[in-house]
Amino acid sequence: MKLAVLDGRTPVVVTEDRAVDVSAVIGVTAGFAGPWGDWLERGHDPGELRDLDLAGLPTVSLDEGRLTAPLARPRKIVAAPVNYLDHKIEMSEQKSVADYGVFLKAGTSVIGPREVVELPYEDLRTDQEGELAVVVGRTARHVTADAALDHVLGYTCGLDISLRSTEDRSTRKSFDTFTPLGPWIVTADEVPDPDALDLRCWVAGELRQETSTSELLFSVRELIAYASSVMTLEPGDVILTGTPAGVGPLRDRDVVRLEIGSVGTLEVTVSGAPAVPYASRPRGRAALAGGAR
Amino acid sequence: MKLAVLDGRTPVVVTEDRAVDVSAVIGVTAGFAGPWGDWLERGHDPGELRDLDLAGLPTVSLDEGRLTAPLARPRKIVAAPVNYLDHKIEMSEQKSVADYGVFLKAGTSVIGPREVVELPYEDLRTDQEGELAVVVGRTARHVTADAALDHVLGYTCGLDISLRSTEDRSTRKSFDTFTPLGPWIVTADEVPDPDALDLRCWVAGELRQETSTSELLFSVRELIAYASSVMTLEPGDVILTGTPAGVGPLRDRDVVRLEIGSVGTLEVTVSGAPAVPYASRPRGRAALAGGAR
Repeated sequence: MKLAVLDGRTPVVVTEDRAVDVSAVIGVTAGFAGPWGDWLERGHDPGELRDLDLAGLPTVSLDEGRLTAPLARPRKIVAAPVNYLDHKIEMSEQKSVADYGVFLKAGTSVIGPREVVELPYEDLRTDQEGELAVVVGRTARHVTADAALDHVLGYTCGLDISLRSTEDRSTRKSFDTFTPLGPWIVTADEVPDPDALDLRCWVAGELRQETSTSELLFSVRELIAYASSVMTLEPGDVILTGTPAGVGPLRDRDVVRLEIGSVGTLEVTVSGAPAVPYASRPRGRAALAGGAR
Repeated sequence: MKLAVLDGRTPVVVTEDRAVDVSAVIGVTAGFAGPWGDWLERGHDPGELRDLDLAGLPTVSLDEGRLTAPLARPRKIVAAPVNYLDHKIEMSEQKSVADYGVFLKAGTSVIGPREVVELPYEDLRTDQEGELAVVVGRTARHVTADAALDHVLGYTCGLDISLRSTEDRSTRKSFDTFTPLGPWIVTADEVPDPDALDLRCWVAGELRQETSTSELLFSVRELIAYASSVMTLEPGDVILTGTPAGVGPLRDRDVVRLEIGSVGTLEVTVSGAPAVPYASRPRGRAALAGGAR
């Protein structure tokens, strides 16, 4: 089942060329979380979707231009740094996810399909990082790798857009528009093995990244187990599983296209940086004076 | 005005020895955010609190044992690393907030007054870090330091409990129970200058931390301006402003007491680590084999 959102507010189930409007069942909410996020936060269980009777619900033809982020504002976006060996090598990293653990991205960084990634600075490199994204469906705390997938609602395509600078990962990766998600959440029953999905990412028509999630250092199951050993994972949380080799700079008007196995294809465009040099960002008086006031 | 929550569900305004139950005005919700968080996420403006007529609303005597976290699950907890010079020195840090920017903590790490901080590992140091916490009341994006305080709902006491390990800050600081907040939110009109508040933190009766927020490298205003230059700050988001010198290890049954100027006093206890060695945490097969599968 493909769970999507039209126009930022209408929850739909996508079936071939149609979108079935499930507002009457799921509800439509005006809050930050969007309809599916709100539905999960209100305590609904993914199992209820099995009983969802689509017959009789209104359908519209699927206009992909109307698809927005399936989750507008996850309470947590947990992400894995250095979780593919080839990316570890390209970044000259001595360490991996096993040393770094996970980091967090701001929920406000989420955009949806065909939306625009905005580069923040004119003089600092910003890269694409294509990743499989896991959507948590049931609370997970100290779960084992074997039990981890029972807590998954489904999967979507995710881009972890990343500024290359000295800042903490949470800063470099949390600018608004830096977490494209979509085009929909494919429920877990349709993805028998998340650790065997092909992933390809193109930028401006050039194939930059190509891997299989079988190459993950922490597999999807292991990553969920690890993250849940640190923090309670809640319904609606998103886990970005890490990116393979091939990250590279984005430029004005680039189209970024991420295709993941049976999950789907996510496409966004890039808007070039405004005339804002990195050095002009707000800084404390003390910082400008070298740290000693 | 002091905005608090009783028993995890009832929004109250604290007036001297009484708690005025404002459920009828604010609403009570069963979701993750708690009543004040939900009230903010539903689009209410802090200015509405000025018109709140407490006369005629039910009051109960203030039983501090019933106070829970004023915000149960902020969508963002933005935090400042190395934002006091004396802490920079004690940590032998070459860099400060000006280099690192901000990091994010998981909303699931929040607990309230008199709740229990749980140490995760028996063989790894976990420290207290006492901090002034800012609660965002109005959306802030690219705000200047001069305009920053217009976006503040109020202030509370915050502890940024921190594991000392190799992991990313988001991991080391996001374990469940690692962000005590409270006892209430003091609205901004009662804190004329957040950059002139005395802060003291005791652990097991010993005064470990003592400073004034006038010593912040990025002042409260500058920190809001900086954070809003990266990510949109939304109502209900929390900003931890950083900790001064005096961080140190926590032990079983320690009481941590944080007192901040006119804001209030937050007290939590510590529960000693279970018999869980750090090396036993879930890790990928690949990681155990040194990163190369």
